[in-house]
Order: sequence, then C-alpha cells, then structure tokens
Amino acid sequence: MELTVYLAGQIHDNWRDQVAEKAKEKKLPLHFVAPQTNHDLSDRIGEDILGKQPNSIYRDDAASSVNNLRTQVLMQKSDVVIALFGEKYKQWNTAMDASTAITMGKPTILVRPESLIHPLKELSNKANVTVETVDQALEVLAYIFE
Amino acid sequence: MELTVYLAGQIHDNWRDQVAEKAKEKKLPLHFVAPQTNHDLSDRIGEDILGKQPNSIYRDDAASSVNNLRTQVLMQKSDVVIALFGEKYKQWNTAMDASTAITMGKPTILVRPESLIHPLKELSNKANVTVETVDQALEVLAYIFE
Amino acid sequence: MELTVYLAGQIHDNWRDQVAEKAKEKKLPLHFVAPQTNHDLSDRIGEDILGKQPNSIYRDDAASSVNNLRTQVLMQKSDVVIALFGEKYKQWNTAMDASTAITMGKPTILVRPESLIHPLKELSNKANVTVETVDQALEVLAYIFE
Amino acid sequence: MELTVYLAGQIHDNWRDQVAEKAKEKKLPLHFVAPQTNHDLSDRIGEDILGKQPNSIYRDDAASSVNNLRTQVLMQKSDVVIALFGEKYKQWNTAMDASTAITMGKPTILVRPESLIHPLKELSNKANVTVETVDQALEVLAYIFE
Amino acid sequence: MELTVYLAGQIHDNWRDQVAEKAKEKKLPLHFVAPQTNHDLSDRIGEDILGKQPNSIYRDDAASSVNNLRTQVLMQKSDVVIALFGEKYKQWNTAMDASTAITMGKPTILVRPESLIHPLKELSNKANVTVETVDQALEVLAYIFE
Amino acid sequence: MELTVYLAGQIHDNWRDQVAEKAKEKKLPLHFVAPQTNHDLSDRIGEDILGKQPNSIYRDDAASSVNNLRTQVLMQKSDVVIALFGEKYKQWNTAMDASTAITMGKPTILVRPESLIHPLKELSNKANVTVETVDQALEVLAYIFE
Amino acid sequence: MELTVYLAGQIHDNWRDQVAEKAKEKKLPLHFVAPQTNHDLSDRIGEDILGKQPNSIYRDDAASSVNNLRTQVLMQKSDVVIALFGEKYKQWNTAMDASTAITMGKPTILVRPESLIHPLKELSNKANVTVETVDQALEVLAYIFE
Amino acid sequence: MELTVYLAGQIHDNWRDQVAEKAKEKKLPLHFVAPQTNHDLSDRIGEDILGKQPNSIYRDDAASSVNNLRTQVLMQKSDVVIALFGEKYKQWNTAMDASTAITMGKPTILVRPESLIHPLKELSNKANVTVETVDQALEVLAYIFE
Repeated sequence: MELTVYLAGQIHDNWRDQVAEKAKEKKLPLHFVAPQTNHDLSDRIGEDILGKQPNSIYRDDAASSVNNLRTQVLMQKSDVVIALFGEKYKQWNTAMDASTAITMGKPTILVRPESLIHPLKELSNKANVTVETVDQALEVLAYIFE
Repeated sequence: MELTVYLAGQIHDNWRDQVAEKAKEKKLPLHFVAPQTNHDLSDRIGEDILGKQPNSIYRDDAASSVNNLRTQVLMQKSDVVIALFGEKYKQWNTAMDASTAITMGKPTILVRPESLIHPLKELSNKANVTVETVDQALEVLAYIFE
Repeated sequence: MELTVYLAGQIHDNWRDQVAEKAKEKKLPLHFVAPQTNHDLSDRIGEDILGKQPNSIYRDDAASSVNNLRTQVLMQKSDVVIALFGEKYKQWNTAMDASTAITMGKPTILVRPESLIHPLKELSNKANVTVETVDQALEVLAYIFE
Repeated sequence: MELTVYLAGQIHDNWRDQVAEKAKEKKLPLHFVAPQTNHDLSDRIGEDILGKQPNSIYRDDAASSVNNLRTQVLMQKSDVVIALFGEKYKQWNTAMDASTAITMGKPTILVRPESLIHPLKELSNKANVTVETVDQALEVLAYIFE
Repeated sequence: MELTVYLAGQIHDNWRDQVAEKAKEKKLPLHFVAPQTNHDLSDRIGEDILGKQPNSIYRDDAASSVNNLRTQVLMQKSDVVIALFGEKYKQWNTAMDASTAITMGKPTILVRPESLIHPLKELSNKANVTVETVDQALEVLAYIFE
Repeated sequence: MELTVYLAGQIHDNWRDQVAEKAKEKKLPLHFVAPQTNHDLSDRIGEDILGKQPNSIYRDDAASSVNNLRTQVLMQKSDVVIALFGEKYKQWNTAMDASTAITMGKPTILVRPESLIHPLKELSNKANVTVETVDQALEVLAYIFE
Repeated sequence: MELTVYLAGQIHDNWRDQVAEKAKEKKLPLHFVAPQTNHDLSDRIGEDILGKQPNSIYRDDAASSVNNLRTQVLMQKSDVVIALFGEKYKQWNTAMDASTAITMGKPTILVRPESLIHPLKELSNKANVTVETVDQALEVLAYIFE
Repeated sequence: MELTVYLAGQIHDNWRDQVAEKAKEKKLPLHFVAPQTNHDLSDRIGEDILGKQPNSIYRDDAASSVNNLRTQVLMQKSDVVIALFGEKYKQWNTAMDASTAITMGKPTILVRPESLIHPLKELSNKANVTVETVDQALEVLAYIFE
C-alpha cells in the first residue's frame, strides 16, 4: 500500500526535499506531491501561459487560476495532507489548503512552531494531528505502516 | 426567501453591526450569524466551561474546540458566506472559514483591501466574488434579490 | 408543500412573467426564482460594484462572478429547474444551468422548439422531461400536485 | 502519476490528435479520452444498436442515450477536463460537459477564442482556467508535473 | 416536528387513504405524498402533455419521464418512505422506489405479505424495517413520536 | 434560529429532562429529540409490532430495526448531537450514535466522567467538544447563541 | 482502460457466460462481476455460514444479508451496470440492483424483452440506455472503446 | 480483484494473524489492515512523537489523535470492514470503527459472541452481516469470490 502525501506550506526553503529524503531513509512507501515550489514560476505562470495582463491584479488572478487547478488535481489524488506553517509570511495558502483538505475528509497533519499555537488554535483543533517539526510529521506517517 | 449569511473575519471592530444595519436600511431579508465576536470570551470559553487547563496550549485547544463547534453549526445553517480580511492580524481563521465554506459549496464573497491582493490571490480566485469593502459585499447580496 | 422553481433561459422576453401568471391562475403553490433578467444590469453589475475594469474581458469576468454567485444561491434553494431554449442566441448559460441542475440531482424540465431537437439531444436525454412550450412545463409542475 | 484527461468539444477537426501528439512530444504522462469523434457514428449509434426508430426525434434520443452513457463512464474516470469552444456550431454538448465536470468537482480548463469571451463569461468564470488555444491548455497540464 | 412520508406501492386500491385516516386518528403529525394514484392518468400523462406519440413504447416513455420527475421531487422532500408490496402485479416501480430511497439514505419501511418473503428477501434485508400490514407500518411511525 | 439537538446516551435516569429544563431556564431556542427512553418499550417494540418472535435473538433484531429507523429519522433532523457516557452499562449504542453523527458531519459534544477518559480517548478526539457534565454541554450550546 | 461491469439479473440460465465470451471475441477490456449465480447456494448461504435458523423467514434473512454484502462490495467496484429482465420470475433483485446503481451514479444499461416495456417504463426511463438483447448491451459497451 | 479488509476490534490476542493465515490457506486475494495492535505503542504514540504531556488526559488525547489519523487513512482505503467484539473490555473503539464504516457505506461484518447479542442488537442490525466467529466472517469474504 503506497500513500500519496500532499505537502502544503511555504515554498521558501527545501523542507519538502528533506521530508522526501527522510521518508526514503525510513523506506516508507510514500509518494509526495506539492504546490509549485518555484516561487517565481508560481507568480508568473498566468502570464507565461496567457500573455501579458493589464496590471498586477490580473497577473495575480491569472497565476492563481493555474495554481489552483494544479492543487485541485494533486490534492484529489492524495491520501494524506501535511500542512507546514513557519514563523514568516502570511501563509494563507497553507491555511486554505489545510482547511480544504480537512473539509474533503483528507487525514491532515499540521506542523507549526510553538510561537504560532495561539493564532492557529482553531485550525489545529480541526486537523487530525498537530506537531512542531516535519520529523514528527514523518513519524506520524511511519506509524501508519507499523 | 430569507437568506442566512455567515460573516467570517476579524473581530476587532464592529464591521458586522455595520453590515447588519445597512442590510436593514436596504430592507434585505438577511439573517446574519458569525463567529464569537467577544475576543476575550472566545479565548477563555474553553476554561470557562471545562475549568483551568495545565497551560496555555491546552487552554487554547479547549477554547478552539468550542469555537469550532459553534462555527460548524452556524455555517451549516448558512446560505452565503462573507469573509473579510483586513491589514492587521494573521487571520488564519478567516482563511480557514472561507476555504471550508468554498469546499462545502457555500457561495462565498471575499472582502480584502488592495494591499492584500497578492497574498490572497489563490483564495480570491476560489471565492465566487472578491470585493474591497463590506458595502460592495452587501451590494452583491442585494443583487440576489433584484 | 410549496416548491421553489428556478427558471433558467434567455432573458430577452417576459416568458417568466407568463409562467408566474399561469401558475397563479392554476393556484399552484410555486415560488419562482431566476437569473438576473435585466440584461443590461446583468452585463454591468461587475463594474457597478467593483468599478471600472481595464477592458471588456475583465468587465465581463467581474459581472459573471456576481451572476454566478446569485445563481448558485438560488439554485441551491430550488426544488425543480425549468430550462428554456429558444431559436436565437447562443444560450450557453442555459445549457450550463441545466447541466449544473441535473448533476446536482435537481429534477429538471427542458423546454425547446422542434427546430432544436438535434443539437440539444444529449442534454434533452439527461433532463427528466423535455417539452416544447412553457405551458407544457407548467402542466408537468401541476401534475406534481394532482 | 498518470492523469486521465477528458477532451470535451467539437468533433469537426482533429484537434484531439494534435493535443495527444503534443503531449507525447512533451513526454507528459497523460491518457486522453473523449466523446465519440466520428460524427456520423455518433448520430446513428442509437439506430445501429436498437434498429430503425419511428422518426428523427426518436433516432436522436436513441443515439443520445448511448452517447451519454459513454461520456458518463469516461468522465467519471477522468482527473481533468478540457472543454474547447470554437466559432462555429451551437456546441451545447461542450457547455453541458464542461458544466457537468465543474459540478462534479473535476478540475476544468476552458479553451475559447477571443470572439466568444462575452457569451461564455459565466462558464469561463466557473472553470478553473480559461485559455485561448489548446497549446495553452497543454501548458496548464504540463505545469501540474513541473 | 412534522414528517413527510412517501407512500410507494401499488395504486389499485385506496390503501393510502386508509393510512392517512389512521394517522389522523392517532393524531400523528404526518404529511403524506405518493406517486400518481390515478392509474389511467399516470399512463396517459405523457401524451396529455406532449401530444400523440408514434406508438405505445414512446407513449410509455413520455409518461414515465413525467412520473419520474414527480417522484424525484416528492421523495427528495420526504423524511421516511413506506413501500407496500401486494400479491398481484409486477410492482417493479415499488422495488425501484424502495431501492432509490434506501440508497439515498431515507429511512424505509417495507410492507409485504407473508407469501412474498422469499422473493423480497434481499430488499427486505436492506430496508430498515419490514412488516406485513400498513397498520404495523403506522405503528412504526407512531413509535418515532413516543 | 432554533436548533434541534439529539440526546444520545443511557436511558436509565432522567438526564434528558434535566437538560430540557435547564435549556428552558436559560431560554435557549432548543428542541430536543432522543432515542426511546422507555427501556422496556425499546426492548419489546419489535414484538409489539411484528408479533412473537422465535427466540430472544430475533426478538432483539426486530426491536433494533424499529429503534434504528427511529434514530435515523431523528438524527437526520438534528443540528447538534450530545452523547452522554456514564460509568455503568456497555453503552455501545451511545458509541454508535456518536460515531454516526460525527461521520455524518453533525457537530457533536461528548459527555463522559473522568473515569472513562482512557477507554473513550479516540471517540473523544473525534468529537468536537468533550465535557464531563451535561451542564457543561448546555453551556456549549448556550455559547452558540451568545 | 479496463472497465468492471456488474451483471444484474436472473440466474436461471448462463447469459453471463455468453456476455463474457462475446466480450472476449470482441477483445473488449471488460471484467465482469455478478450476484451469486448458483441459486441453491445463494438461498442456503446464510445457514451454511450461520447454522440452522428457526424457520424459512430467518433462513431467508440470513442468506440475504450475505448476498447483499457481496453485491455491495462488487457494485462499488463497478464502472458500469447491466440489468437484465426476462419474462419469468418476479426479478425484484434485478429492479433493486438497477435502481441502486442508478442512484449511486453508475452508468446503467437495462435489457428487457418487448413484452415488458410497459411495466418497466419508469425504470427504463431512469436507466441510461434500454435495449432488448444482451448483444445490444455489449454493443453499447463496445462503443465506449470505439 | 483484490480486496482490502480493515480488521476492527480488540488487540489483546492474535486473532488478526489467524484471519490472515486462514485467508492465505483459502487463497483469497485479501489484503488486511488494522488499528495499531501493539497496545503499549498505541497508548504511548502521542508522547513518543510529541514529547511528555502535562498529565494522562493529554497523553491520551495526543495518542488518540495519531491513532485516529492512522485509522482514517486505512479505512478510506478499505473495501470491507470486519468488527470483532469479545466478552471483555469496553471496546468502544470497535463500536466507533464499525459505526464509522457503516455510515461511510463500507460493507461491514460484525463478529460477536452469543453473550453480546442483546447489548449489540442495534449495531448488529445496522451491519450487513453478523456472525459469531472469525471463521464465519472469512466464509462471508470467501463467498464474494465464489
């Protein structure tokens, strides 16, 4: 039984690679998918495909429509969702993806630092499990196969 | 035909009262529900009901469980959801409520200032309508009855 | 038992008023809802609410987002859908509304002239009942109460 | 991860072959399905199977019942839907398929020429992404795998 | 709390009137709906509305499309379904209505004579409750209010 | 906005009357429904309606089919579910009702004494809120209206 | 793309073998499943597993519970359902299976002789396609792959 | 066709190994999944991953969140559920898992000793099949492939 795991969260460092590497070390039968992690590409994909837009509002809307289609396809294929919050950035897409996953009935693991306990308390309460590190999230996934 | 409208968003000023008042002026058959707007009560409701918790993490989790039940009841009763983002605060509950509503198939109006266009672009693209002021959101609701 | 009926279809004549009047004559306990029938308002509602858009594409998208929210609210409230096709216009909104209704499990009556039998054959086959006049559609509704 | 893509739209030229060929060139792991593209067969399949019908109305209804079963099977198997509108024909089946896909929660890409922006504005607003060429639609699909 | 009860089953005697009368005697807050009980009307409703059909096959299909719309509207409004089988007739509509109700999650009571235990054993096993008389079915409904 | 509340749990004392009385004191707009609280009637209802069964196994199955229909009707009508566990009895129906409610998306409050924390930990984690007394459960309901 | 096809209908001759053989001849990628076709086994499976029951009613109920589990597993795995009616027997299980499939959104082909057009008219109208022979049903399936 | 079977129930003896072994003997194409059967690990998994909790209540809640995620992943992957009740322990997780499975539409087999017929009568009535031994449950599964 292989599981597909959607890795929601910030795209400013390579935490997803670390997750994949550690899963490999533990020989867990996991397949990872994620939002577009190339931030620049993620912002310009609308204009890349549709051409120059009138202003930045429409540039953003064009990009987001492609990003949302991508996420919808990959999340529907997923068995579990990990949503990582860090201390920087607004991270509303992470909140959106986590909430979408929970509402769709996808088992969801929230990862957030201690400093964010209070502002994320309602989302944390709705997620299946809340942990503080991606290592802990992987331990939760490993436990499925134990 | 009366519609029930869930007003998601920050609870630091009385924007909901303004919405209700304006709806009344326009004689729109709308009934408004919302998350707990008494911030202090919202934070302490867990301990108010369950008693003193070991530390602030558990205090927060206790409160969030009651707040989430409340929101689930009221959102299931709603026909439309308005989600208001402002320039301050993390507002992850607003993102969570908007995303839950959209995933449940509730028609959803996003209200956000121009300054937040970029970080909210994916959520905005998933919402039915995005506007910049609550007055505009009310105009959208008024249009349903025209 | 009162039923709410969504009247999808062209907005270039007053067929909906005729339907409502005839229902009243027959004393059928029906409540009618419909897309925005003021064509000009329907086209400009986006700019009316959101202000001037960069060009006609964005003007159209702004209007359609408000129209779609309106339709989603009203169709979710409906018990039956009537979708009327005439000989003029592209009427893709009528096809879209009929198909949405059928996929949502809303009992659906298609009204179309004999000249459109061939191009509408698949949609007609998916609808519950296909008739040629709104009078016939009303007879179908009247039969529910017989 | 291979994706199955339903290609809704007109069946008067070989655009689907071009899509498949380009996907092959880009080495995208896509599997394409589509409505019956042999127009004549699509019109006569009812009588081919059920025998001569009393008149063209029943001939059409017989054919459409077989076509609809085919589409239902294939669309339920699909992960993404592309719906192509061209400048000719009524294309109500394309509108019907796109609307069905969107209502079923299938991620949907609309392809339409600039000339059709206004009449397709509501359907375009409901689709995930709207583009003007099938090449752009393929770029959207390619982006899922980037 | 008033409940709406759909009374599926044969339409050759006035068993539904007896049910309604007994419910009234017991002062149960029940509202009854049912398929068209005027057999002749039920068979000719298609031609009544659509006009003369080419032959009896099409006459039957026209009638059934109107009957099915009627049933779909009323069953979606119902809280409970009673399906009565008697010793005569094929009663495939009764089996169809009972099975539809069970699959939709409508609580369902099957009424059948002892002689039909064997051929109805799988449907009986899927229904919530199986009884032998409509009086017993009413006792089941009365029990909801005790 | 009146809410219907299903009160799952043991039927050996009058805790439901206390809940209803306290709700009345607090002037909460709540309507309560519950499983059959007359234990003897609940056990014999199958034979009361269907007549003498061959042995106690079939007596039990006959009763349970009527009880399950009753619960299904009432739970589908409910907006919130309270499930009370006490220190005595196996209470598998309470666990079944709570789990059904949670899986159906009904907001659910679990009430259990401190002594049952460990054996109920998984069910408690799935419920929205877990409290120790029915007074606390009522406070949760009261909070919805604050 | 291989499709799984559930073959509902009478179990008194080997029509399923003929379907499978013809599908093989046509090289269609179809996998067939079906209710238990050993009639005697189907009737006694309850007692085979659970032991002697008090009387034939309970013997039937025990058998039907096992048969229904089997059908539920196999139908959930199926992409298409064929339901065959013949001139003999009550065939309520066929009506039940066809109606369950249609309500679950499974594309469904009804096969029935001309003599049964009238009593099956409502079920026929709800099925996707109605034909008179299993050869025709196979032609419908073959058309999916053309 | 391989089926995945979730084995809910007590974790105090090796009944699952016996089931797997017997399935292997019978050459049934079954793949088994289950809750965590290492009781000690199941109780401490929360603290193993999240670290020391303030007291046993929070220790239990931490463990249950991980156990519930595990069960949700595995049950969503399952085609059939077997729920075994024994004479000891409260077994509320077994009742919870069985009820969740039934509500999700998973075909469910209940295994319970004769002594538990009365307290499990409602759950037994909702399950597809109730048997007394795991051997009988396996015979039910074997029957699917006959």
